[in-house]
Amino acid sequence: MDKTIGIFGGGQLGRMMAQAALPLNIQCTFFEANADCPSVALGQVISPKAENGLNQFIQSADVFSLEFENTPLADVDVLTKQKELYPSRQALAIAQNRLLEKALFDELGIPVAPYKAVNSLESLEQAVTELGLPIVLKTTTGGYDGKGQFVLRSSNQMQQAWLELGPAGSLVAESFVNFSREVSIIAVRGKNGEVKTWSLAENHHHNGILSHSIVPAPKSLDLQPVAQDYITRLLNHLNYVGVLTLELFVTDKGLFANEMAPRVHNSGHWSIEGAVCSQFENHIRAVAGLPLGSTDVIRSSVMVNIIGQHPKTEDVLALNGAHLHLYNKAEREGRKIGHITLMPNDSIELTRLCRQLANILPQPLALTQDMNI
Amino acid sequence: MDKTIGIFGGGQLGRMMAQAALPLNIQCTFFEANADCPSVALGQVISPKAENGLNQFIQSADVFSLEFENTPLADVDVLTKQKELYPSRQALAIAQNRLLEKALFDELGIPVAPYKAVNSLESLEQAVTELGLPIVLKTTTGGYDGKGQFVLRSSNQMQQAWLELGPAGSLVAESFVNFSREVSIIAVRGKNGEVKTWSLAENHHHNGILSHSIVPAPKSLDLQPVAQDYITRLLNHLNYVGVLTLELFVTDKGLFANEMAPRVHNSGHWSIEGAVCSQFENHIRAVAGLPLGSTDVIRSSVMVNIIGQHPKTEDVLALNGAHLHLYNKAEREGRKIGHITLMPNDSIELTRLCRQLANILPQPLALTQDMNI
Repeated sequence: MDKTIGIFGGGQLGRMMAQAALPLNIQCTFFEANADCPSVALGQVISPKAENGLNQFIQSADVFSLEFENTPLADVDVLTKQKELYPSRQALAIAQNRLLEKALFDELGIPVAPYKAVNSLESLEQAVTELGLPIVLKTTTGGYDGKGQFVLRSSNQMQQAWLELGPAGSLVAESFVNFSREVSIIAVRGKNGEVKTWSLAENHHHNGILSHSIVPAPKSLDLQPVAQDYITRLLNHLNYVGVLTLELFVTDKGLFANEMAPRVHNSGHWSIEGAVCSQFENHIRAVAGLPLGSTDVIRSSVMVNIIGQHPKTEDVLALNGAHLHLYNKAEREGRKIGHITLMPNDSIELTRLCRQLANILPQPLALTQDMNI
Repeated sequence: MDKTIGIFGGGQLGRMMAQAALPLNIQCTFFEANADCPSVALGQVISPKAENGLNQFIQSADVFSLEFENTPLADVDVLTKQKELYPSRQALAIAQNRLLEKALFDELGIPVAPYKAVNSLESLEQAVTELGLPIVLKTTTGGYDGKGQFVLRSSNQMQQAWLELGPAGSLVAESFVNFSREVSIIAVRGKNGEVKTWSLAENHHHNGILSHSIVPAPKSLDLQPVAQDYITRLLNHLNYVGVLTLELFVTDKGLFANEMAPRVHNSGHWSIEGAVCSQFENHIRAVAGLPLGSTDVIRSSVMVNIIGQHPKTEDVLALNGAHLHLYNKAEREGRKIGHITLMPNDSIELTRLCRQLANILPQPLALTQDMNI
C-alpha cells in the first residue's frame, strides 16, 4: 500500500481525510491556493497559482480525490489523462450542475420537487406560472451554504430575484418543498462495488449554514431503507468510488432529494467517534482500493459546528465525553472553524450537555433535545 | 490554547500523541536523532546531534513532554531551567532507576517482589542466598522489551549472568514472581490533581515483547480497584501530570508491581478506539493544562502488535471492525511497526477474528480467546 493520495482542496475535509489516512501509512498532498489552509499540517500543499502547479500536483500522488465539489473540470481533464480520480469526472460534473443532477434523480426514480430551468426573466415568469409560488431560485452551478439562492414568495419579487441571480446565466426554479425536517444519507462504494451506508443524520441549519446534526436521525427507522435505496441507485449508476452524500427533505409525501455532494460531508463528522469506521477513513479506503470498514453506529451522537468564533477549549473539553475538532482556521463570521461531537449516555445527559454547550458557544445554538437514545 | 508541545523522542508514541493533539489545534515538535522517524509526518523533528539542537528544541515549543523514558536527565536539566516538563524530572529519574522505583513502591505500600541491589559477583552470590532461586537479574538503568535481563535458575549460572550484565555496573536481583498473568493499569493526572484511570489490560508477551493486550482484562473486576489505588498513590505522591503506566503481576497473593513507565504505553493503544478519550489525547490534555476526558470503555478490545513484518493492509482491513495503525517504520525482526485493534461484538466473533488474524499475520500469534464480552 503506502500510496499517496492527491486531494483537490485543502480545507477541513482534506485535513480530516489526511488524519484518517495517516494510520494506514497513506500520505496526502493538497491542491489549494491558501498556503495556510487547514490541511497544511498533514502534507504538501501545492498552489494552483504556482508555476506549473497542476502538473506538480499530478506528479505528487498516485491516485486522486477531492474535498471540494467545485473542483474545476478543466483541471480534472488534465489530471485524468494521466492518473485516476475518485469519484469520477462524470459524478463531479453532475454534482456541479443542478439541472444535470435533477435529471439524474428523475432518471433513477428518486423523487425531487418539480423544477424548471430558468435563463431569462421571461422563463422565470413562466416557471412561476407553471410551478406556483413560493419557489426557490438557485444558480445551476456554484453556490453553497445558502449562497446563490433566492426564495420567491410573491410574483413582484421576480425583478429583484432576476437582478440578483440572473447574471449567473443559468438558473433553476424549484417548487418550495413543504418539509418537516432535513436529513442526509452518506454512503461509500468501493472499487469492487461494495456499498456501505451510515445512519441518517437529521440536520439543523442557522442562516443557511449547518448548525448541528443528530445521528441516528430521530424517528426515522422507516426512512433509513428508503434513503439507502436512493443513494445506492446513485452509487451504482455512476460506478462511484468513495463517499457520496445525499441531502433529503422529509415531507408528508415521503423523502425528496435536495442535492448530492460527491464527497465527505459536514453531516458525517459524527462518524469519527460515533461509527466503527468514519466517513473519512472509508473514503480513503475506497480511493486506495482497500476493503471498506463497518459503518455501524457505536453510540448516538450530536455534532455541533463551531461557526465564526471559537469557544474556550477548556470549556468544551470539560463537557463529559465531548470531542473537539478544530480546523486551524481564523475566526470570521459565518465560517465553519471546528466541530464538537457529543455522545450522551441517555436523554437526561443529552439535555444537560446541550444546555452547557449552548452556554459556552459564542454563537446562538438551538439544540433540539429529541434523540433516539 | 494553540500551544506547541515539545516531545523527547519521535517514535510511534510521539506520532500517536501528535495525532491526538492536532484536532485540539496543538502542534508537536520532536527531539529525535532519526530524521525519518514515525513522528516526522506530524511536526518538526530536531536532532540532538544538530548544532545547538537541544536549545533549538527548547525554543520550538511552549511546554514539554516525552515518549521515551530513557530521555537523558542532563537534557532535562537544561530544559527545566527555562520551560516546564510533564511528567516531572523527579518522576522520570525514578522510572529510569529500578532501585529508586522499588524504594518508592515500598514507601507507598505497593507490593513488590523481594529484591536486592547487586554490584559485584559477591553481592550477586549474597542475593541468591537471601532471595533463593530463581531470581531475575536486571540492569538498574536502561533495558526494555526484555533486554538487560537474565533469569537465574541455578547457582552455576551466576558467572554467566555477571559476565552478561555486570558491565552495566549496577544491577538489581528480584525474586522470581510466580504470576499467573501480567496486567497493566494506565492513569492520567491533570494539573489540578484530577485523576482518571482506564480499565486494566491483560498483557501477553512473545520473546519478551508485548504481543497483545485484552481490555478489560478478563476476570479482573476485583483487581481494578486495587490497581487503581496503587497508581493513584504514585500519581499523587509524585504530583504527576500526564499519563503514567504501572505494570503488575497477578499472583495468588494479589498484585505485585513490576515497573512503572512515565508515559503512554503500548498496552493502552486500544484506548484510541476502545475508550471515550484515548491515553494519547488525555496525555496531551494534561500537559496542556486542559480538562481530562472520560476514560470509560466503549467496547471490549483486543490490541495486537505488528512485530517485524507487515501483514497485507487489505487483509487486515477486511476483518470486521478492525482498526489498523501503521507507524511508518521499516521492517526489522522484533520491531514494533504497527498495531491492530479488534472490537468484537461477542465471544463468537472474537474467536473468528482471532483465527483470521493469526492467519494473516506473518508473526506467530497465540491469542487467548478469553474475554469479558
